[in-house]
Amino acid sequence: MEGFRFSTEIVVRFAETDAQGIAHHASFLVWLEVARIGYLAEHAGGYRAIQEQGIEALTTGVELRYFRGAQFDDRLTVWARCVDLRGARFRYEYAVERVHPDGTVELIARGSTSHATVDAETHRPVRLPQWFHDAVARAESSSRT
Amino acid sequence: MEGFRFSTEIVVRFAETDAQGIAHHASFLVWLEVARIGYLAEHAGGYRAIQEQGIEALTTGVELRYFRGAQFDDRLTVWARCVDLRGARFRYEYAVERVHPDGTVELIARGSTSHATVDAETHRPVRLPQWFHDAVARAESSSRT
Amino acid sequence: MEGFRFSTEIVVRFAETDAQGIAHHASFLVWLEVARIGYLAEHAGGYRAIQEQGIEALTTGVELRYFRGAQFDDRLTVWARCVDLRGARFRYEYAVERVHPDGTVELIARGSTSHATVDAETHRPVRLPQWFHDAVARAESSSRT
Amino acid sequence: MEGFRFSTEIVVRFAETDAQGIAHHASFLVWLEVARIGYLAEHAGGYRAIQEQGIEALTTGVELRYFRGAQFDDRLTVWARCVDLRGARFRYEYAVERVHPDGTVELIARGSTSHATVDAETHRPVRLPQWFHDAVARAESSSRT
Repeated sequence: MEGFRFSTEIVVRFAETDAQGIAHHASFLVWLEVARIGYLAEHAGGYRAIQEQGIEALTTGVELRYFRGAQFDDRLTVWARCVDLRGARFRYEYAVERVHPDGTVELIARGSTSHATVDAETHRPVRLPQWFHDAVARAESSSRT
Repeated sequence: MEGFRFSTEIVVRFAETDAQGIAHHASFLVWLEVARIGYLAEHAGGYRAIQEQGIEALTTGVELRYFRGAQFDDRLTVWARCVDLRGARFRYEYAVERVHPDGTVELIARGSTSHATVDAETHRPVRLPQWFHDAVARAESSSRT
Repeated sequence: MEGFRFSTEIVVRFAETDAQGIAHHASFLVWLEVARIGYLAEHAGGYRAIQEQGIEALTTGVELRYFRGAQFDDRLTVWARCVDLRGARFRYEYAVERVHPDGTVELIARGSTSHATVDAETHRPVRLPQWFHDAVARAESSSRT
Repeated sequence: MEGFRFSTEIVVRFAETDAQGIAHHASFLVWLEVARIGYLAEHAGGYRAIQEQGIEALTTGVELRYFRGAQFDDRLTVWARCVDLRGARFRYEYAVERVHPDGTVELIARGSTSHATVDAETHRPVRLPQWFHDAVARAESSSRT
């Protein structure tokens, strides 16, 4: 998808559906998190690399628009990019596509999450380490692998 | 809370926490839904009343800002109000407060959800019934019980 | 329910249902945990009292039989009793009833969970404190409040 | 793992952990379901093939023993086999292994689930179709692919 270099694949679990017969809207937040963690694993040594420096990344905001429902067993591609790194804050933007069996795709949701980095002990804001800035800069400028 | 007439009480479940030691950010969406359903039960005959007319209310958008984490066993008040009813669309706005054992409260999140009403069979948009408009008008103008 | 002195009330949340139109079977484990925590709050100073002694109670086993589905908005009574305290182990037994609007009840599930107490730091087994034995003995012999 | 021919891979999601720092015990039920559905996809045309015949498979029982906790980002192998097909009932047995980065594995849980097939409309018991018996017989006798 234009503007995105990273994506991860999700298959909708039965436990994620609700009585409307579609994935519950809160499930999307879990998928965005899976994508974020996959992004960090590929580009920044994984979320554990951040934690090992005594830093936690809190989620401070969520914004999501749903265009279509996702159904049990649907294959989804969750696109993610890291943007707006400043001080102790950063954001992720996402696009969620359904991949049909014939290979065509359909945009079903778009959104973003906001994050703040804090000291794991004191929970006070901690500036993003330079290596994180560098890793994101590399990730967002590289051609897709 | 000023501007809200309806609220529901939530106690944070252990299963809703994550390895950061606080409630996972997706849990808030579930609590907002509990508040929405409580609102409909009190003011509009319940969600089942809507379903019995062959209407489903889909969630089409979510926007949430988290100011503080919620911890296991915290008592929360989720304030909800229904706004912007137009055609086949409406929104809810929310404020989530933590209630401390001494009775003081602390705002921990604010947000909104957007919804569209569709025919349960065809999934085509259906205008909100007049009784729903009336019920919300009564709910939002009444003094709090 | 005969043989049980403690119960807690649950209302089935929409997010707990799945595409079969009933509560997902994993939701029951969450409700049993809510009942366990309510039991500890009423009889043993709460789960936090245990944690404050540097003890964690791990779940080591689950056994559950489902007789009927639970539906969105159903009111359930989860009965719980603590049994078989020995060394660093104890069990809970449960019965889950649906409470119909007319007040009649229907047994929908029975089960048990097994637990081990460990040191929160070392994760090595720790014998149940005597006050926990005493609290459970009082709880299970008292007349229902 | 001896006695099992089918397995599926799971990576523990952050949302699946709890404040004890390990995956919540209810998460295992979701993973067993993912394995069951993967089994059906590989051997019996998928769960949708069953649904398309107007049959639903309900979960009527769960039995699970946890030997070790699973942590965020752990890679797990969930082994599954279908056993005891009789009339309108069948069971699955499972073993859950953690796969360490060095490739060694560690058994962390074992369990089983019981299921009943019912008519999707009437919810009355329906005998397992012969093709399902045949598919399971083939699956359990085949050499692992």
